[in-house]
Amino acid sequence: MTSTVLKEKILGLFEGMRGKSLITTQDWSLDELIATLELAEDMQKYRFTDKYAYILKDRSFMMFFYNPSVRTRQSFEVAATELGGHALFLEPKSMRLKTAKTAGETVEDAAKVMSRYACGIGIRILEDKVSCYGQGEELLREYAKWSEVPIVSMAHDTFHPCQGLADVMGYRKHIGKNLKGKKLLQVWGHGALCRSWCSVQESLLIGSRFGMDVTVASPPGYDLDPKVIEMTKKNCSLNGSKFEISHDPVECYDDADIVYSRNWMSPNAYRDGEYHKQEEIEKAMKHTDWICDAQKMKHTNNAVFIHPMPIDRGNEVTDEVASGKRSIIYDVAEDRLHVQKAVMALTMSKFFADNR
Amino acid sequence: MTSTVLKEKILGLFEGMRGKSLITTQDWSLDELIATLELAEDMQKYRFTDKYAYILKDRSFMMFFYNPSVRTRQSFEVAATELGGHALFLEPKSMRLKTAKTAGETVEDAAKVMSRYACGIGIRILEDKVSCYGQGEELLREYAKWSEVPIVSMAHDTFHPCQGLADVMGYRKHIGKNLKGKKLLQVWGHGALCRSWCSVQESLLIGSRFGMDVTVASPPGYDLDPKVIEMTKKNCSLNGSKFEISHDPVECYDDADIVYSRNWMSPNAYRDGEYHKQEEIEKAMKHTDWICDAQKMKHTNNAVFIHPMPIDRGNEVTDEVASGKRSIIYDVAEDRLHVQKAVMALTMSKFFADNR
Amino acid sequence: MTSTVLKEKILGLFEGMRGKSLITTQDWSLDELIATLELAEDMQKYRFTDKYAYILKDRSFMMFFYNPSVRTRQSFEVAATELGGHALFLEPKSMRLKTAKTAGETVEDAAKVMSRYACGIGIRILEDKVSCYGQGEELLREYAKWSEVPIVSMAHDTFHPCQGLADVMGYRKHIGKNLKGKKLLQVWGHGALCRSWCSVQESLLIGSRFGMDVTVASPPGYDLDPKVIEMTKKNCSLNGSKFEISHDPVECYDDADIVYSRNWMSPNAYRDGEYHKQEEIEKAMKHTDWICDAQKMKHTNNAVFIHPMPIDRGNEVTDEVASGKRSIIYDVAEDRLHVQKAVMALTMSKFFADNR
Repeated sequence: MTSTVLKEKILGLFEGMRGKSLITTQDWSLDELIATLELAEDMQKYRFTDKYAYILKDRSFMMFFYNPSVRTRQSFEVAATELGGHALFLEPKSMRLKTAKTAGETVEDAAKVMSRYACGIGIRILEDKVSCYGQGEELLREYAKWSEVPIVSMAHDTFHPCQGLADVMGYRKHIGKNLKGKKLLQVWGHGALCRSWCSVQESLLIGSRFGMDVTVASPPGYDLDPKVIEMTKKNCSLNGSKFEISHDPVECYDDADIVYSRNWMSPNAYRDGEYHKQEEIEKAMKHTDWICDAQKMKHTNNAVFIHPMPIDRGNEVTDEVASGKRSIIYDVAEDRLHVQKAVMALTMSKFFADNR
Repeated sequence: MTSTVLKEKILGLFEGMRGKSLITTQDWSLDELIATLELAEDMQKYRFTDKYAYILKDRSFMMFFYNPSVRTRQSFEVAATELGGHALFLEPKSMRLKTAKTAGETVEDAAKVMSRYACGIGIRILEDKVSCYGQGEELLREYAKWSEVPIVSMAHDTFHPCQGLADVMGYRKHIGKNLKGKKLLQVWGHGALCRSWCSVQESLLIGSRFGMDVTVASPPGYDLDPKVIEMTKKNCSLNGSKFEISHDPVECYDDADIVYSRNWMSPNAYRDGEYHKQEEIEKAMKHTDWICDAQKMKHTNNAVFIHPMPIDRGNEVTDEVASGKRSIIYDVAEDRLHVQKAVMALTMSKFFADNR
Repeated sequence: MTSTVLKEKILGLFEGMRGKSLITTQDWSLDELIATLELAEDMQKYRFTDKYAYILKDRSFMMFFYNPSVRTRQSFEVAATELGGHALFLEPKSMRLKTAKTAGETVEDAAKVMSRYACGIGIRILEDKVSCYGQGEELLREYAKWSEVPIVSMAHDTFHPCQGLADVMGYRKHIGKNLKGKKLLQVWGHGALCRSWCSVQESLLIGSRFGMDVTVASPPGYDLDPKVIEMTKKNCSLNGSKFEISHDPVECYDDADIVYSRNWMSPNAYRDGEYHKQEEIEKAMKHTDWICDAQKMKHTNNAVFIHPMPIDRGNEVTDEVASGKRSIIYDVAEDRLHVQKAVMALTMSKFFADNR
């Protein structure tokens, strides 16, 4: 597709994406998600050329990291830079937000002022910074309510939309653009990092939106958010695809096209307003049979291996698989950059191009 | 005014501003302050165009935050970005400055080296980082002595010149450019944030420079720096305008054109080389009648409400006033960006434009 | 030399520098070091012109600071900015690297992912962040093994190549480009900062590479890394120049052309896997005769005084010398910027120029 045609297509069809927040891919239409992926693919192709280099020229994107991050920080800051803009790295210790207990600024005031300075606001807030699951999601929706510029989740307790988009960008490259009927195995891995539900839940939602058969496999006691499971089932039902839950660490691999092995915490991690991390790790580390290895991969349909990183090697997956020929982990990590550039371009630029 | 005329006017009249530090607006001539405001107004008009986009192209502005900040950090970093430059966010923990007690680098060495790298240096240092009022001011003046590039206060214990400029930019937009004879009410509000004198003192100085009648109102025991009060009186006297001190939380509102309600600490906050924050908060919170509300605003001359933010809503001012039609808080917050861009352009660029 | 000739010379001879890591100048050929210095000198001449302004246009350089820093942070961040690129300031607290004791990411995974985002990676890691001398060097070499983009030392326990290049750039300006037979006095100074061996060891290596006579002077008990001393002797031997060790705080100054006075820790600073900083400081502060002063400077060949800064004035050197006419400390600090720009241009840009 030529640059002009692509531009017209995106300008024509998705004018409405300007100003749109991205809290989960479930909030966006399938057409919008596909437009984002196509733009991201074109951005990868034309990286380091002038084509997209002025889209956010001298614009500022605010990144609020309530939780530290390596990949997310790097990929967002590089994304803004490659579009000609600038990302501000802001840490919550420097926010004096009003809470039930402390004096400070309201989200309304903070969001309205930032809308005067920024072209968009990214927020990352995970389990250990909130007192119960769902509070991170609430904070993002509160920001989106008052902000006049888009709010983008950079991972929060419930969802991780940019990871979900990068996952699918990786699938499209490695197993083809038609994902209907492909089997996505979302399998729990033991490990010592006590991980958030956000990447995994986003994966279920976006995978089922693209028509994949979805299997969630874990030891008993590792149920995810029932509302997200319901949404996933509904997505599958609308697409006529399958949804399964398995507690068998081996059989679940049968005929998978994509194996996504990752640890996640149990629903008991939050109790009595606290986050019981050490207890979770001890419990998880006992399930030593829940590891993705070469033997299990043999039962798949020559599946690709995917993981949002950082990987807990030797626990979630063996080195042999993580560094093997069917591992697409580094490509997907790179795709974070491309999809984030596409999201920023579509939602945060006043003009798609030629605006300087 | 056309771009060329403006440029010539500023180039012609204010050549001398290059290299100038900004520690308080009182150090600058009225002509220089007006030139800065006119440039800021033009920069707002032409934001996101090429007009001022190359003024600090690839130049670096150093920001030293001894105290954290939301708005100041954001507005300076965005200002540098929108002029084509870059702002470095530096925190004092990474400075090893020599003090009476510790080995380290002298201000002379630090300032001389930074002058080789940067086009300007911003410094923020408030009450809790110094052991007595005035030490922040001393540090800025020491930097200005040795630095070959401009030093800009990003708020220090004594003054906050960029806030003062933004305040006046807001007045000019909302009540007109002729501020002579307009009444500025600088009124204390109770609250739990124990605030610095810097914004308030800067407001008194710049307000009186522009010919406004100034009323300072607070409960007894909340006197500001006597030297600043003297300067304000002198400014008023030179302009033939009025200066009043009031301890009545209601009458002070009579016929005000601008109501600036904000908490500030008492002179007892610093005692014995320490900063007694908790004691100050407890004392302040007893003065519940010192809040700006709609009832009091009725006594004014349909005044605008202004506050440098973050606001302690429900204490300094009611939501009804802060979010009301006459509140100009978000505009003034935005004006921080424009005046800072103007200050940087006038003092830090080798050539006003066309320098690349 | 015209721009085109310089460009062709560098493109022609040093094509092989692209992708090269810089962990110590000893790893680079003398031709490569000279090319870097010549480019740095040209970059100083054409600073703030378009000539080198697009070399890293919209590229991202990752800076990992395990240790805080003033000058290094500023000079690298400004270097990236002046080449049109962007430097990310990353602190180790936000890295979850796998160690013997903790779960986390492997260096392989971290380096491979960063290679997808960045044009280069800088790492700073000094004594107090490792448990024995040499671990910093090991970490950099491990990163260089896996990374597909250059690794640059921003000072580590063993070496500080950019400081070494800046030192020599300063010598070339102040005592001429022919350094053969000039005497470099590397002299220990007492002080309360307990300094790393990195700058001093790099100075010995690069000084001896350029044919200088080298004298290392210190009180007994302050031996440097024996392997580095061996390399320095070998460099001297290949150049037919002299290498001396002295324990006399006065005589060592005889006929020196360059006096480089700086504190360094003793080999006992690391014992039993710990870093005994306080003990080192107490021991060092007793050697009050080890200070560079005007009296000693009289014995030199009108030597220039150099120090990598920050200076511990009154201990390592007197104010009279540090601020005297023969002090080149600020020039060398500025040269850090120019040599780092040259290193980044030569190793990290896909095309030397015209690449946008």
